[in-house]
Amino acid sequence: MPKEPNKEPKKLDALFHDTLRDIYYAEKKVLLSLPRMAKAAHNRKLRAAFEGHRAKTEGRVGRLEQVFELIGATPQGKKCVGVEGILDEGQEVMKDLQGSPALDAGLLATAQAVQHYEIARYGALRTWAEEMGLIRAAELLQQSLDQEEATDRALTALAGTVVNQKAQRQAA
Amino acid sequence: MPKEPNKEPKKLDALFHDTLRDIYYAEKKVLLSLPRMAKAAHNRKLRAAFEGHRAKTEGRVGRLEQVFELIGATPQGKKCVGVEGILDEGQEVMKDLQGSPALDAGLLATAQAVQHYEIARYGALRTWAEEMGLIRAAELLQQSLDQEEATDRALTALAGTVVNQKAQRQAA
Repeated sequence: MPKEPNKEPKKLDALFHDTLRDIYYAEKKVLLSLPRMAKAAHNRKLRAAFEGHRAKTEGRVGRLEQVFELIGATPQGKKCVGVEGILDEGQEVMKDLQGSPALDAGLLATAQAVQHYEIARYGALRTWAEEMGLIRAAELLQQSLDQEEATDRALTALAGTVVNQKAQRQAA
Repeated sequence: MPKEPNKEPKKLDALFHDTLRDIYYAEKKVLLSLPRMAKAAHNRKLRAAFEGHRAKTEGRVGRLEQVFELIGATPQGKKCVGVEGILDEGQEVMKDLQGSPALDAGLLATAQAVQHYEIARYGALRTWAEEMGLIRAAELLQQSLDQEEATDRALTALAGTVVNQKAQRQAA
């Protein structure tokens, strides 16, 4: 089929598929980053949070693969410059703060920026799945969205009670 | 002061300042993108939302400038690759979906990804300001955070009721 000049405009199903590939790439990228972040973290609870995050991320990757299957597509990522940018910033923070008491605060902020990126993407995908009548896909995406939101709340609690107080005390 | 070899590790105040510069850059970048997004949107409510977003973003830029002043720093941005990445993806979506009924759904998803990036950054900055005893700065950052969260909820409501239904109906 010639692409030009009578190219059909993309529809919601194409946008859904593209965004699914974007978040699939992002989750796999996060899986690669988590061990580095866990290793860099000084705070025991933060390290445990990053280690626990791994299993949850693998679970979300599995759910995304189920959604690909539900729409009859092969699971395949598509370079996601949004999450790449956030992780690059995180790498810079890790380098700048090496040996600093503020390192954990920086790691935690990077993790929360990634969480929020994923919350936005899962929210859009869930809404679109509902609109297209993909009930099972919408349920799977909602499960991942709920998990991301719960993790974000847990990280916020950790930020307020442990990491930053320690960073500030040592920085004073 | 020589940077090497006795470089002092950065502390929480330095991380706060860097992140303030990051979000200042991001907000200014969003101000440049909003007119393009408003112009591209077909849905009247979505266009109005993007247009209304402009004044709110300007208000947040003003609050950030107050926070810079409170810490005795000159307002200055620092290239934020996170938001650059999200906006680049948005540009790609706008190009791919030109003339498509799904364009508005794509624009809305880009706006929500930016919102969530900013929610994460304002949340971290607010927590750090509290930890450092910068009460007035924490209040200003909380105001911007509340505004971002309210805008995100409004966009979610818009996604569920107008934009996507229209996209799906026309796509059917």
